[in-house]
Amino acid sequence: MTTGNETGVRERLTGHRDRFDAGFARYFDTVARERPSRGVFVPEALELVRDMSLRGGKRLRVALLYEAARLVTPEAVAGLEEAALSMELLHTHGLIHDDIIDDSPVRRGAPSVYYAYRERFPGRPQTALGLAVLAGDLAAFLSLRVLLTAPVSPELRQAMAAVQATAGADTVAGQILDLERDFGPVPDREMLDLVSEYKSARYSVLAPLRLGLLAAGADPAAHDEGLARYATLVGVGGQLRDDYLDLFADSDTVGKPAGSDLREGRRSYAVCAVLAAATGREREVVEAALAGPGCRPETVGQVRDIARRHGVDERMRADLNRLAEEAASVAAGWRPRWREEAVAFFERLPLWAARRAR
Amino acid sequence: MTTGNETGVRERLTGHRDRFDAGFARYFDTVARERPSRGVFVPEALELVRDMSLRGGKRLRVALLYEAARLVTPEAVAGLEEAALSMELLHTHGLIHDDIIDDSPVRRGAPSVYYAYRERFPGRPQTALGLAVLAGDLAAFLSLRVLLTAPVSPELRQAMAAVQATAGADTVAGQILDLERDFGPVPDREMLDLVSEYKSARYSVLAPLRLGLLAAGADPAAHDEGLARYATLVGVGGQLRDDYLDLFADSDTVGKPAGSDLREGRRSYAVCAVLAAATGREREVVEAALAGPGCRPETVGQVRDIARRHGVDERMRADLNRLAEEAASVAAGWRPRWREEAVAFFERLPLWAARRAR
Repeated sequence: MTTGNETGVRERLTGHRDRFDAGFARYFDTVARERPSRGVFVPEALELVRDMSLRGGKRLRVALLYEAARLVTPEAVAGLEEAALSMELLHTHGLIHDDIIDDSPVRRGAPSVYYAYRERFPGRPQTALGLAVLAGDLAAFLSLRVLLTAPVSPELRQAMAAVQATAGADTVAGQILDLERDFGPVPDREMLDLVSEYKSARYSVLAPLRLGLLAAGADPAAHDEGLARYATLVGVGGQLRDDYLDLFADSDTVGKPAGSDLREGRRSYAVCAVLAAATGREREVVEAALAGPGCRPETVGQVRDIARRHGVDERMRADLNRLAEEAASVAAGWRPRWREEAVAFFERLPLWAARRAR
Repeated sequence: MTTGNETGVRERLTGHRDRFDAGFARYFDTVARERPSRGVFVPEALELVRDMSLRGGKRLRVALLYEAARLVTPEAVAGLEEAALSMELLHTHGLIHDDIIDDSPVRRGAPSVYYAYRERFPGRPQTALGLAVLAGDLAAFLSLRVLLTAPVSPELRQAMAAVQATAGADTVAGQILDLERDFGPVPDREMLDLVSEYKSARYSVLAPLRLGLLAAGADPAAHDEGLARYATLVGVGGQLRDDYLDLFADSDTVGKPAGSDLREGRRSYAVCAVLAAATGREREVVEAALAGPGCRPETVGQVRDIARRHGVDERMRADLNRLAEEAASVAAGWRPRWREEAVAFFERLPLWAARRAR
């Protein structure tokens, strides 16, 4: 792999994130000035959307977007900032509604928007629910509006907004499919991959690639097969890694209690793999953990031991590596068409991410 | 008023509605073919969005859109069909989430999407809630996507999508303001008008006007003051009429039990007017009706009598007429700049709508 004098994946992620976060805060200052002339509920909703948005994580999407533009040019590219805002607002929309759907009190180390409203309106859960639904809706419309008013040509605005409207609809379909995954017979691998594809690969990987290329003046449609393949491999890999960590990592590493998928009856990649491997008494333990409301830390430990006994952890790590290597090889195929330093980033990113599952 | 050989307001509304409804059904056939390759939850969600959408009412928005284009040209105009689909999908989005917010079992004479899901998943209210939130989200993204893929120029797509993204954000702000209206001190008229403006005038009147003009090749920004004034007058008038009918009309006329605003503690125009007029024992009756969970038909009757005693019904009708006449005079100012038969439609529409409150 020719890497030249590029900085490492982590440094590049951090650089993109820090620049973006400053702009994200400025964006919300602008939005706050446009609210209706009366009342405190709208400013409060905007404040909660802002807090949730700024409590961001790695901003992997933002890095993918900026690096996608760098595939074409090292110059500054107009419209990227608005594309990044749009992507992260769409993500905020998803998080806010997700926490209603899962009844989650905590997100990113602080109260979810839903639970922030429940604290604000004790004894009025219906009001809290309503305001949380609306805060999520607001983020969705702002996500499209910021693109449609970006300081770029109308053609580019419309092309970028079309990418995001499609990504939004696909992600919602993925969320619906995700709820279905936990019903009826245990899902097969094809179903799990389809959930990852719709629920996360399309808006978290494919959309940033398309938006970055569009802003840089390239036509992503001409390369869509490779982009979609890369996105699927990275998206499925990311979900697989999250599911692996949820069962096998220490609570400290992932920042939430281990075994949450098990406790909440979610048929993650890890849970399905244990279910497929376990037999007899072991299978009863796993099924009881999934069905029961009182799945305790000891139960999670038991299921983890069962999984290790059957080599589920090793197989998942091997699977992760395979996906990462395949993604890297798709990206390697982008040279010499695209710029070396950005191609190298896309090549190294999945391998770097897969290593974080150890 | 010069009316030429135009048909009446009602006939024009019906014509627009019937043409649109056939196209709306065809649109959903197309969308249904794009779903993920597995599962039944996504097709079911699309089916519920479709059913709710096709159980449409008068389609006043659609008529406003087509007539706005006719202000400019009598010819068929590309993009209007997609603009109409977008508006009605945005409306469906609002209805689905509104019925979650208000916990409403019924909408348009059949189960709300939320309650359809509750019937489908007995004993799993959280799943029903999640799927209803997502069905509403799906309608929102489809609403933008249908514009961004319309068979018109990229410039027009982006201009129309910008109108709708702004209308979506404004409507959500209006819904939030609407929840605030029912908290704290009794709202003044300015606050009530602001709720109507954001919650309904902007997406139901102003957006159709802007979209119709844009599609017909005119620049709505050049006329925005008059359009916004007309939209506010018609939007406030529409809300005032609904609130009037909710308290004063027979249940048969409005298609839902009378007094629902009172029963659900909503500070409608009518409720606020009675509160302002009533004193002593009367005021206690009204306040008890608003606060109490068991507001019965007799209580609604008592409040109605109090309102009539103080002339609230007459004042509301006078107010409605004043708003309608003002809107008609704004529209009259559009001649001779715009085509006579469409100007006449916009002039007659508010007067026709106000008469329906008798």
